[in-house]
Amino acid sequence: MKNRSMGLRMTQFMFENRLRSLRGKFDSVGVDTVWIIQPENRRYLSGFKAADGQLNESSGSLFITLDQALLLTDSRYTTQAQQEVDGFEVITHKQSLIDALPEVFNRLDTRRLGFEGGYLIWDLYQKAIEKTSDHSPPVEFVPLSSLVEEMREIKEPEEVEVLSRSAQLMGDVLARVIEELRPGQAENDVAWRIETLIREQDTDGVAFPPIVATGANSALPHAIPTNRIVGEGEPIILDVGARIDGYCSDMTRTIFLGKPPSYFKETYRVVREAQVSALESVRPGMKTNEADSIARDFIKKAGFGDFFGHSLGHGIGLAPHESPGVGPLRPKALKEGMVFTIEPGIYVPGKGGVRLEEMVILEEDGARVLTTNRDFYSF
Amino acid sequence: MKNRSMGLRMTQFMFENRLRSLRGKFDSVGVDTVWIIQPENRRYLSGFKAADGQLNESSGSLFITLDQALLLTDSRYTTQAQQEVDGFEVITHKQSLIDALPEVFNRLDTRRLGFEGGYLIWDLYQKAIEKTSDHSPPVEFVPLSSLVEEMREIKEPEEVEVLSRSAQLMGDVLARVIEELRPGQAENDVAWRIETLIREQDTDGVAFPPIVATGANSALPHAIPTNRIVGEGEPIILDVGARIDGYCSDMTRTIFLGKPPSYFKETYRVVREAQVSALESVRPGMKTNEADSIARDFIKKAGFGDFFGHSLGHGIGLAPHESPGVGPLRPKALKEGMVFTIEPGIYVPGKGGVRLEEMVILEEDGARVLTTNRDFYSF
Repeated sequence: MKNRSMGLRMTQFMFENRLRSLRGKFDSVGVDTVWIIQPENRRYLSGFKAADGQLNESSGSLFITLDQALLLTDSRYTTQAQQEVDGFEVITHKQSLIDALPEVFNRLDTRRLGFEGGYLIWDLYQKAIEKTSDHSPPVEFVPLSSLVEEMREIKEPEEVEVLSRSAQLMGDVLARVIEELRPGQAENDVAWRIETLIREQDTDGVAFPPIVATGANSALPHAIPTNRIVGEGEPIILDVGARIDGYCSDMTRTIFLGKPPSYFKETYRVVREAQVSALESVRPGMKTNEADSIARDFIKKAGFGDFFGHSLGHGIGLAPHESPGVGPLRPKALKEGMVFTIEPGIYVPGKGGVRLEEMVILEEDGARVLTTNRDFYSF
Repeated sequence: MKNRSMGLRMTQFMFENRLRSLRGKFDSVGVDTVWIIQPENRRYLSGFKAADGQLNESSGSLFITLDQALLLTDSRYTTQAQQEVDGFEVITHKQSLIDALPEVFNRLDTRRLGFEGGYLIWDLYQKAIEKTSDHSPPVEFVPLSSLVEEMREIKEPEEVEVLSRSAQLMGDVLARVIEELRPGQAENDVAWRIETLIREQDTDGVAFPPIVATGANSALPHAIPTNRIVGEGEPIILDVGARIDGYCSDMTRTIFLGKPPSYFKETYRVVREAQVSALESVRPGMKTNEADSIARDFIKKAGFGDFFGHSLGHGIGLAPHESPGVGPLRPKALKEGMVFTIEPGIYVPGKGGVRLEEMVILEEDGARVLTTNRDFYSF
């Protein structure tokens, strides 16, 4: 059991289960080999934790058939792969991944190769096609759509446990930062404080750069922290996440120092009630767009329909944003074991915004909130 | 002049020059419209600083013709784009980028669209093709190869200035960390100290996660800092970079606490002499593989040829690794104004490694070192 840590105990058994599940889909997808290069998919299936240096600098690929599993990497990552991965044969290619493909295809007797259409760069795809165009027998490239991403939607109990710890830690850090928050602090100082507190604990660091958006900046859903000074009575949106053993948390609170103006009291109440109605209504079997419309219709009826532009939420796991999206488009049935966020908001340009976000696990009888329940919800 | 900062003074004039230069290449590439989605290329051409949330979450695209320049984004980024970008018309698309393509092509009268083959995801490419397959007049998609990446190879004086400041700041931080370094500290504590010192100054943070690799870990060129405790007389590789106004630095020192064993004295001497010979020899017009072989041959002759697996260096600018690569493959002429690293290394598995890295600007008469010249090179 090489993938040990104080936190998530990933056993070889878990990876074997995942591979078995993946292999069970080969027939319906019509492939005999699957090529995995997307870093979270790679980690999910093998335990290999390496990130990619840059998009065009892969740290490794998996090639999986019904009875073989290879991890191809280069000399920079060989040792790490051997330490972290049990169920794959680690192969170090000398030149490039592309140059190694014909040998891999020979060895695996590949005829129909599934590839990650949602991740593979056009150039790399073209080069792979060209390099193996005269391969015998010929290899057909088949886009996998979201095959592994869909496996990752349903969290195993061990994953729920670490996601829960990630959420709890984030809640504790955020509570401390909010207690310390005073008028006169700058947005980016608060963001750095959050990052520091996360890093000082036994984490992988932040799941994404913290959002600290105050005053009119809070009307920007993806605001980058600036040197703007926090004042009294204005909205302060804190949207933050940590990462533990690869697994992300994500939560948002909107707070006010001193008394909020009545306008924000009203928008806050609407956002919170929209959120609670969604939290209380989601069930396995409900469509993602139905979940979204519960909160959206509530906000619309309250007269703020023009000011809620983004989706209600998103899946979360090894990536901060992953499948399923919980929005008005691309409906999909919610299932037991999915972990996702519920985060309605109201953003009035020039004025400011309110967003509230919880992370939930969907259980048989509804959503269980993973983000700690310390009450930031009263003024 | 919206793109102001205390550091790099990017004037509208600079962006106009870049666009003019890009447009001058349309004929030879055979396109009338260029689609830019790669974040550094986008920033280089427009000044739009937004990062992409994730690979599949673009914050915007540029569409450039001979007489028009559009920045397409969604409502999350509209305000930021309007604040940061002068020479482009900012358009907020309602649904997805793909859905907006037909209207963009109509407006720009696009017939031959250049796209970034080295960045565009296979799925997005397919969807764009499908969405516009019945467009009239038909639009042909033409891969751009490294068009903008090659423009970015030659740095403008303002870029050299900020790269130099980024390198100097990094050198100062590293000097301080090395002064503080004591046996008993853990690799990841040292890495966090480096990150903190960078963040406490007026920077964008680290250019990449700091590498602190000690003892046998130093034999891994891409080691991730662990909780291993630093001891006396063992190699400590510190490979670090900061980012200022988007521009990266990158430098590596190998140090020893107390006396290095004679084996490492020898490898250190070889690496340093290989580096100095490359630093002193590179000239405009020299091929990248020739530059690489100066250091590589030196290391080979000294008997360590099997232990230097990576390239001699890489271009650096808005990305920590960018064109040109300076290695044995894909030869390319070095030119005046290129900024790149020179970083030979010797890595003996199980034993440890030595890497030394400087960042240089290539001038008419040779390389000028940008990383500060404080002497870490004597024991």
